Amino acid sequence: MGDATPPKEHILILLPLPPNQELLNGIKKKHPGVTITYHVLEFKVEFGGEPHKIPDEDFLETTILVTLGVFPSNVKLLKNVKLIHLFSAGADKLADTPVWEETTIPITNSSGVHGPQISEWVILQMLANNHKQKLLLEWQKKHYWGKHAEVGWVRDYVGQRLGVLGYGAIGRQTARVSKALGMDVIAYTASPRKTPESKRDNGYIVPGTGDEEGLIPSAWYSGLDKASLHNFLGQDIDVLLIAVPLTPQTQHFLGKEEFEILGKKNAFIVNIARGPIIKTEDLIAAVKKPAKEGGLRGAALDVTEPEPLPEDSELWDVENIAVTPHVSGMGDTYADRAFAILDINLTNLEQGKPLINVVSRKKGY
Amino acid sequence: MGDATPPKEHILILLPLPPNQELLNGIKKKHPGVTITYHVLEFKVEFGGEPHKIPDEDFLETTILVTLGVFPSNVKLLKNVKLIHLFSAGADKLADTPVWEETTIPITNSSGVHGPQISEWVILQMLANNHKQKLLLEWQKKHYWGKHAEVGWVRDYVGQRLGVLGYGAIGRQTARVSKALGMDVIAYTASPRKTPESKRDNGYIVPGTGDEEGLIPSAWYSGLDKASLHNFLGQDIDVLLIAVPLTPQTQHFLGKEEFEILGKKNAFIVNIARGPIIKTEDLIAAVKKPAKEGGLRGAALDVTEPEPLPEDSELWDVENIAVTPHVSGMGDTYADRAFAILDINLTNLEQGKPLINVVSRKKGY
Repeated sequence: MGDATPPKEHILILLPLPPNQELLNGIKKKHPGVTITYHVLEFKVEFGGEPHKIPDEDFLETTILVTLGVFPSNVKLLKNVKLIHLFSAGADKLADTPVWEETTIPITNSSGVHGPQISEWVILQMLANNHKQKLLLEWQKKHYWGKHAEVGWVRDYVGQRLGVLGYGAIGRQTARVSKALGMDVIAYTASPRKTPESKRDNGYIVPGTGDEEGLIPSAWYSGLDKASLHNFLGQDIDVLLIAVPLTPQTQHFLGKEEFEILGKKNAFIVNIARGPIIKTEDLIAAVKKPAKEGGLRGAALDVTEPEPLPEDSELWDVENIAVTPHVSGMGDTYADRAFAILDINLTNLEQGKPLINVVSRKKGY
Repeated sequence: MGDATPPKEHILILLPLPPNQELLNGIKKKHPGVTITYHVLEFKVEFGGEPHKIPDEDFLETTILVTLGVFPSNVKLLKNVKLIHLFSAGADKLADTPVWEETTIPITNSSGVHGPQISEWVILQMLANNHKQKLLLEWQKKHYWGKHAEVGWVRDYVGQRLGVLGYGAIGRQTARVSKALGMDVIAYTASPRKTPESKRDNGYIVPGTGDEEGLIPSAWYSGLDKASLHNFLGQDIDVLLIAVPLTPQTQHFLGKEEFEILGKKNAFIVNIARGPIIKTEDLIAAVKKPAKEGGLRGAALDVTEPEPLPEDSELWDVENIAVTPHVSGMGDTYADRAFAILDINLTNLEQGKPLINVVSRKKGY
């Protein structure tokens, strides 16, 4: 009589963050009967490393594991786990681990959580570049009321074109803001998106942000081969946002040839994805080249190859290249939103609906 | 038989900029028969000053005068002028001049031209503040790959509230971008805007930007008295954009009391209007006050009192206050857009339609 009672989930949380009781109570209230075990890990526990202090029993009881990448070395301990929720957006560091290769446990990631946070960083860097923020800050330091002629003229972004390489959560939110700035947006995806369904963002979207239906781009491009990429890059792009996952295909995806194409409009390059997607030396050369010879107007990199960037790297000192230490995603609301995804998926499990934010072991993200 | 031929206008342009022949040819082509006389002034000609080298005949022939504020001292020379188009957005510096007081020649301004340019500066300052851009730039200078814990967490603007004091072209475009960032927007105007018509922006709007119909704000407030202002400021504002014209009523509009109200949410204050709208000492005190005591999280000022800001002003060195030397409006596309307004009004004159961007001598802007 009546509906079957949903199974009572045992959630094990392994995170290097103190528990937010308000968030956890919210989950318990919405999903009566769940139990939550929370271990605060030290930050130094390596991604993919083993948390020695977690008793085997905790793993054996667990049906849902929430982690930044820490697993037991013996994956058999995860035999009751029906969902692994990654607190990170990327899953590339997981690819060689036993969980990835020896189990078929569904893995969800926290992609989408970063959308607003990182796209704010992107917009900041775009505006810092065209408004000559570095110069303005130096003037302030020197108490110098500079003259108009010394700033030169600033070109605002109205009518300029943003190319988004990888139209995921971050790309979509950057597109939303860029369009509000008066820009045109074009999108690039690995596989073609011809239908309205394929243009949709089916992952987690922070309410009030993003481009759920994929209506913002004026044109869509696709393909992982050089010719397709070059065709996209040749579409008069003023700002290129790199937001593709790092996979064997995107490793060193952008080098000399690509920067030459982008140099026709002296594009500004933003990388918030992974450092190795760019050939660093080629980027440096392209930014140092004069604009009239097809040089790039600048770049902003929150990711580098390698990380941390060595102190003697040339990247630090190139005029018009901004480097930040992989901080663009460090948001106050990160945990709220990563738990919001878990919350949605708990509901989906209870109602027998498909999970959101499922990682494809085949695609690698 | 047929339409009356529109009068052939004589346009006199007095600007400290070299003529852009492409723009001028565009105007001549669209308005056959107009003649254009262009005098390149030196930048040092004072606002309101007299350009000694302009022959009286040039003024006497003129039907349309384009200027940044330079007029003949004898306003009778303007007897044929039917339109003065100001290249500046504000008209406050004109208030005591003979043209303002002794003539009734319609004056149009270039309000709207600045919308995208200045709102980009506003968004830049908002993002530089919450993303700790100054710290990130220092790290880069030192070749330092900082740790996450050293940045601390950044709170993105999703769900935060922008209050726009003066919902004109700049306020509307900032509202558009802020909404795309996921913010809520509330608007404040001198007179009430209850009807759809009154919420409209009837001035020049750079295509693809702004909020023509006034649909972005979730609520509108109005009034020039203290109680109305305080009611607005008390609406949980996270970021206050000051974009009202400087008039006797808005002189020192914001001081200790107002910053105390805004301190409840530790608001960030942005002033792109005029320096004297703020009581500077009170702002400094409010920013220096600790957040938990109701201090402001910071401020960004492109305008100060006085200008240039003296080298020994305390403003330069207050942590979390950004000062720039009145440069937010220095755009590459400024002239294009200021001439676009002239172009629209030439058409309106020819077709007997009302002019856009008319300055009210009564309101002072």
